[in-house]
Amino acid sequence: MPDPDAAATDDAGDDLDAVLDAVRERVTPDEAERDRLAAAAAALADRAREAVADLPAPADGADVLTVGSTARGTWLAGDRDIDLFVRFPTALSREDLERYGLRVGHAVLPDGEEEYAEHPYVVGTRDGFDVDLVPCYDVDAATDIRSAVDRTPFHNEYLTERLDDDLAGDVRVLKAFLKGIGVYGSDLRTRGFSGYLTELLVLEHGGARETLAAVADWHPPVRFDPADHGTAEFDDPLVVVDPTDPERNVAAVLSGDNLARLQHHARALLADPRTDLFFPESPPPLEADAVRAHVERRGTAPVAVAVDAPDLVDDQLYPQLRRSLAGVERELSGLGFDVVRSATFAADRDADGAGDARRAVLLVELAARTLPAVERHEGPPVHVREHAAGFYGKYADDPEAYGPFVADGRYVVERERPPAERDAVAVLASDRIFDAALGARVESALERGYDVLAGPEIAALADEFGADLREYFEPAV
Amino acid sequence: MPDPDAAATDDAGDDLDAVLDAVRERVTPDEAERDRLAAAAAALADRAREAVADLPAPADGADVLTVGSTARGTWLAGDRDIDLFVRFPTALSREDLERYGLRVGHAVLPDGEEEYAEHPYVVGTRDGFDVDLVPCYDVDAATDIRSAVDRTPFHNEYLTERLDDDLAGDVRVLKAFLKGIGVYGSDLRTRGFSGYLTELLVLEHGGARETLAAVADWHPPVRFDPADHGTAEFDDPLVVVDPTDPERNVAAVLSGDNLARLQHHARALLADPRTDLFFPESPPPLEADAVRAHVERRGTAPVAVAVDAPDLVDDQLYPQLRRSLAGVERELSGLGFDVVRSATFAADRDADGAGDARRAVLLVELAARTLPAVERHEGPPVHVREHAAGFYGKYADDPEAYGPFVADGRYVVERERPPAERDAVAVLASDRIFDAALGARVESALERGYDVLAGPEIAALADEFGADLREYFEPAV
Repeated sequence: MPDPDAAATDDAGDDLDAVLDAVRERVTPDEAERDRLAAAAAALADRAREAVADLPAPADGADVLTVGSTARGTWLAGDRDIDLFVRFPTALSREDLERYGLRVGHAVLPDGEEEYAEHPYVVGTRDGFDVDLVPCYDVDAATDIRSAVDRTPFHNEYLTERLDDDLAGDVRVLKAFLKGIGVYGSDLRTRGFSGYLTELLVLEHGGARETLAAVADWHPPVRFDPADHGTAEFDDPLVVVDPTDPERNVAAVLSGDNLARLQHHARALLADPRTDLFFPESPPPLEADAVRAHVERRGTAPVAVAVDAPDLVDDQLYPQLRRSLAGVERELSGLGFDVVRSATFAADRDADGAGDARRAVLLVELAARTLPAVERHEGPPVHVREHAAGFYGKYADDPEAYGPFVADGRYVVERERPPAERDAVAVLASDRIFDAALGARVESALERGYDVLAGPEIAALADEFGADLREYFEPAV
Repeated sequence: MPDPDAAATDDAGDDLDAVLDAVRERVTPDEAERDRLAAAAAALADRAREAVADLPAPADGADVLTVGSTARGTWLAGDRDIDLFVRFPTALSREDLERYGLRVGHAVLPDGEEEYAEHPYVVGTRDGFDVDLVPCYDVDAATDIRSAVDRTPFHNEYLTERLDDDLAGDVRVLKAFLKGIGVYGSDLRTRGFSGYLTELLVLEHGGARETLAAVADWHPPVRFDPADHGTAEFDDPLVVVDPTDPERNVAAVLSGDNLARLQHHARALLADPRTDLFFPESPPPLEADAVRAHVERRGTAPVAVAVDAPDLVDDQLYPQLRRSLAGVERELSGLGFDVVRSATFAADRDADGAGDARRAVLLVELAARTLPAVERHEGPPVHVREHAAGFYGKYADDPEAYGPFVADGRYVVERERPPAERDAVAVLASDRIFDAALGARVESALERGYDVLAGPEIAALADEFGADLREYFEPAV
């Protein structure tokens, strides 16, 4: 990959405009697509309104909104998501809101299924579109919300007032870029940029090109407050105060690494504009032989725990897996193992949610799988008489310990390292793994059984995790 | 070994007195030994005076002194050292002092050999005693000295005025203890307590028992200034300002570890008085099989460099070896190796100084002999645009590097570790060893060739270094 700054010549600007225009062309839905979507959204909204009208009296005053990128004209050509919200009066009990919401959902999407976020809601397909039908409360302001979805209508209103067709095109271009470089999405697997965040950034900077030029020079932490009303301090690398809620950072989910990735790729685009940054080809999954070759070439000792993942959505599973991975790493480091790198993978959730449990992997690559049989243990300085005597007395007659001897003024012993703590595989394959701070649901999953793979054995993971292993062993920015 | 404080009962005091009395009895020379020594010293001094009288006029006024422990009555029974000083007028040139000193020396010790400290001097034997005949200047005060030996007459004078027979006996007892626990001697191999330091400590505390009781409770740094005239600050764990020189710390050579060892053994003696602390049996040298068993049991990777030592006296060789060992350790640690423990040994110098070169060893015990083939290399934070671009550009096209990827906001690569840096034996057996900060004379010695031993191969060192290997693999306080 070329140096991101090397080709920054004076005429790069023209190339960049040409590239951005070409991308805009490609990601802007044509009139037929717009019409199809508008027709489908209108028909769905009508059906929803009919269903709302049939609800009992407490639901009187409820209305139906089309929200999200399709409502705001910022969806990428080919995306097929329609988000419909039914907004209920705040007098309605939460229980009724859920019940009425599902009733409307099933009326609009007779073949729909129920999903669960803060409220249950119905997802289904209609005319080839993926439709979410979500109930929310009609609160007075985004600061009064009862659940996160109550904010959405406010976001929708804020943006539709400000985004003209030209800016909407810029939003599409920036979304396509974020997608192309792998940082689009505020789900907890990706920890990237949400659509709303993308829209606010384009509004803030006046366009996609302007946003990318600014990003290239950011020195995080970076803070924007479009409504100039922020009241809270945030500890995040990027802060964009929600113009509908002064206490919320729209970029709270974004990881520092994904922000750095955007900076890297923005510079690369500015230096050498080309559309393939927007539409990269996915590399093929890594095959088992290639995994073995990497393990051999790296001369390291990877160990992997493979387990049937707990039955959780990605937004719950990934934080649990990351916490568990960090716990296992800390445990191994604490025992004296030297961690080179690590990663956690999970298979995609079955589309129908009803298949076998998906597998998840905690991969820790160590410098060496085993440790010496002795472990240095430093006691107190000899001059601290009472403590020192206690330490000395504890080890003086221990036939397994070397010492106590004196080093740097302290008593020191070399204790025997228990055999089960000398081998990372023994640590992970035994109950010692439960000494690690694990995500609670991952811990339960491990209690039901798991496999430990070591060294070239991890090649067996390529069947299911070839794409993740490609990313691990051939890491790009 | 029992807990040093556990047996500290009320009646330990009586036992202690009995033990100290028994030791005093054993280390005090009997009348026959005193007479023999007095006669030999007097005869030697007479011969020296005759030789001085024969010197040319510039040496007029030179006198002869018996100094050291035999002169002060603080030698240990069985010690057979007589130190004679010829003290010349300061008007004498250094060249003449050396010439006249040697002339007197050879006259007194016809079979003597020349040794070199700051001045050359003559050592030889006479009537079964080991005699040093050393020239010095007759300066007005110890602060006016031209070389270290000029101080000795002042020390002699200070102590003979203050040490009565009873205190001299206590000095003997304390010397015997220091010798028994291995910390007696201010040579740079031992880095322990000199005779003069021992004498000052006994004077300061009023006896051997009182000194040991005080030592047991010391919290280094500890400072004494018997003449209450100290002017300098010292960074040593024990400071005893020389009563004949306010700017000198008599304990400057003492290592913190040897001070800690004395504290440990003083407590052990106070808690459980017994004479075997004074007269321990030396453990037998470790045999090759036992070395192999330790290497196996410890599960570590010892590597040793064995070399013909440079032709230096111990006081020059040991500092060079220690500096070289520290340099090799730093080099290996810098490459990523994990040092468990280390030591340096040298064979005793041939008594006649004329045999084959003695061997010396730098031993570094590693957790593992080899390292992974990749090495993590962290670049700048991505947001530091110029630096970051430079780093990225350097590695982006390197087929041997993994990455650059982003971690914790920085560019990171995993570089290939050169094959010669993955194996500690390859490092030490190649010119890489000269990248280590080595003592200059050790470096020259290595340039003439050396051997590298690894793992169980170090058992081959047992022939020559069995006692050192015993100390290393079965370390006592």
